[in-house]
Amino acid sequence: MLAAIEAGGTKFVLAVGHASGAIAARHEIPTRTPEETLAEAASWIQSQGPVAAIGIAAFGPAQLDRNAADWGHILGTPKPGWTHCDIAGYFANRFEIPVGFDTDVNGAALGEYRLGAGRMTGGMAYITVGTGIGGGIIVNGEIVHGVSHPEMGHFYPRREASDRAFAGVCPYHGDCLEGLASGPAILARWGRNLSDLPDDHEAHGLVAGYLAQLCHTLFAFCAVECIVMGGGVMKTPGLLERVHASAQSLDNRYLPGGARHQIVSPKLGNDAGIVGALRLANASRNLSP
Amino acid sequence: MLAAIEAGGTKFVLAVGHASGAIAARHEIPTRTPEETLAEAASWIQSQGPVAAIGIAAFGPAQLDRNAADWGHILGTPKPGWTHCDIAGYFANRFEIPVGFDTDVNGAALGEYRLGAGRMTGGMAYITVGTGIGGGIIVNGEIVHGVSHPEMGHFYPRREASDRAFAGVCPYHGDCLEGLASGPAILARWGRNLSDLPDDHEAHGLVAGYLAQLCHTLFAFCAVECIVMGGGVMKTPGLLERVHASAQSLDNRYLPGGARHQIVSPKLGNDAGIVGALRLANASRNLSP
Ligand SMILES: Nc1ncnc2c1ncn2[C@@H]1O[C@H](COP(=O)(O)OP(=O)(O)O)[C@@H](O)[C@H]1O
Ligand SMILES: Nc1ncnc2c1ncn2[C@@H]1O[C@H](COP(=O)(O)OP(=O)(O)O)[C@@H](O)[C@H]1O
Ligand SMILES: [Zn+2]
Ligand SMILES: [Zn+2]
Repeated sequence: MLAAIEAGGTKFVLAVGHASGAIAARHEIPTRTPEETLAEAASWIQSQGPVAAIGIAAFGPAQLDRNAADWGHILGTPKPGWTHCDIAGYFANRFEIPVGFDTDVNGAALGEYRLGAGRMTGGMAYITVGTGIGGGIIVNGEIVHGVSHPEMGHFYPRREASDRAFAGVCPYHGDCLEGLASGPAILARWGRNLSDLPDDHEAHGLVAGYLAQLCHTLFAFCAVECIVMGGGVMKTPGLLERVHASAQSLDNRYLPGGARHQIVSPKLGNDAGIVGALRLANASRNLSP
Repeated sequence: MLAAIEAGGTKFVLAVGHASGAIAARHEIPTRTPEETLAEAASWIQSQGPVAAIGIAAFGPAQLDRNAADWGHILGTPKPGWTHCDIAGYFANRFEIPVGFDTDVNGAALGEYRLGAGRMTGGMAYITVGTGIGGGIIVNGEIVHGVSHPEMGHFYPRREASDRAFAGVCPYHGDCLEGLASGPAILARWGRNLSDLPDDHEAHGLVAGYLAQLCHTLFAFCAVECIVMGGGVMKTPGLLERVHASAQSLDNRYLPGGARHQIVSPKLGNDAGIVGALRLANASRNLSP
């Protein structure tokens, strides 16, 4: 049996299950202080019987470099008490088994790639459009890591000619993608969620166009075949179709492989992250401790 | 001994050498019809004594998918006679040894990553800014491949507020990056190469700003540590420094790992592609034929 933890800012999802993605038991707990939350998570896992490895998909920023002294730690975060929390070390010490560790969105990307919408594709990106905009990329069958993890929400899409006034809500960049098309950006600008605005409201086209630039740029840079788009904002009826149409028109049939490009919804739904964490657990068994 | 071919639109660079990047002999021939060019390349290689594998870094578009029936072929190209040319197959049949095959820019990226400016970095992109704008990305130690190869020159950077009139020269997209900042775009717009325009000419800031958006987006999407920028346009004095400053200001100290970001010139100079082809040859020895 493998254990999986999806460590979020408001709740921790816990599970035990198998590398196949099959979940044997599942449990959620609210996120409080690190001490309380990690102890409760550990007890629940322990109550499920012996496990061979633990996979953790955590909110970021997080230290993913296995050679760094602070591997497996949460880095500087506004969440009180969590900065420098050694989340991977806590479980490694307590259980003395291999621990896999990555970001929540990388975990979800891995889940969708191995067992969801990205199966059998030549590269996949998973994007979530919610409170923030972020994602993970799978290339050559592996999660993209570098000096850190991708932060895809913070590039600067080209503004529409009719839409240059809104300053955007990103505290770092103003009108980066997250500053223009995240849930809070939409709310700040138009006073409602995108699904609560009439079908012919300009917001639909603008948000779709900015998200389409993310997709087009991902196709151009990483040659991924499939982009999986989840998160609260993507629940807006028709949005996925608009993004797809707009990305195609940006490409103008230029990119090689473009006929195979897909923009789709997550197949694992809310389970992408926890299933990905099971895969992280499984993969950690082949890593040196 | 390994053989390497950098197959360009105007010339083929040939070499024999070692996986270390050491070149024992080197030769250039002009690109003519496939029949003439490939035959001359093969004879020269044969004249150098026995080789264990051949690496080819070819102009694109090219079929890189080893499972495709047309693996190793040039795809649709305006170069007369070369469309569907089975360049990898030609050498595989003639020499009956393993053949590695990738694009010219992916070859250059691999060369710089293993033996040049990208050594020991946590991910690297190689960009060339010349007649076109293109490049290759190395993530997790491997060349990024997907449904095809990256085409980084064709995303849409945000236009400067003072610079929205020029329509750009890309036949597919108008003012994509290549349409705005390639050598021909600069020439079409300002009548000269960038290095021949005065230091205080607006072109320097505009071109640097657009190229900086490419760099910033690459850092954000792929978390690469190092971006190596070559090609004719990058010979402009001061341009690399301007791109670097502009990319830093776009990031505004947001990206995790940003303190380690580098934007640098190629270390292997004109040898990046041929050295990369030696590495492709070496790597092909571990692949199934
Ligand atoms: N049905 C919906 N339609 C449009 N937007 C929604 C919908 N549900 C939630 N949102 C937006 O998505 C955001 C929450 O995103 P979600 O992905 O659920 O959470 P988080 O990003 O915090 O993990 C909210 O800010 C809200 O504006
Ligand atoms: N010293 C230079 N300064 C600025 N631009 C240059 C310089 N040399 C060449 N260029 C530009 O670079 C382009 C050629 O790029 P290059 O990388 O040498 O070739 P290619 O891209 O065809 O392989 C030309 O279009 C020219 O405009
Ligand atoms: Zn931002
Ligand atoms: Zn273009």
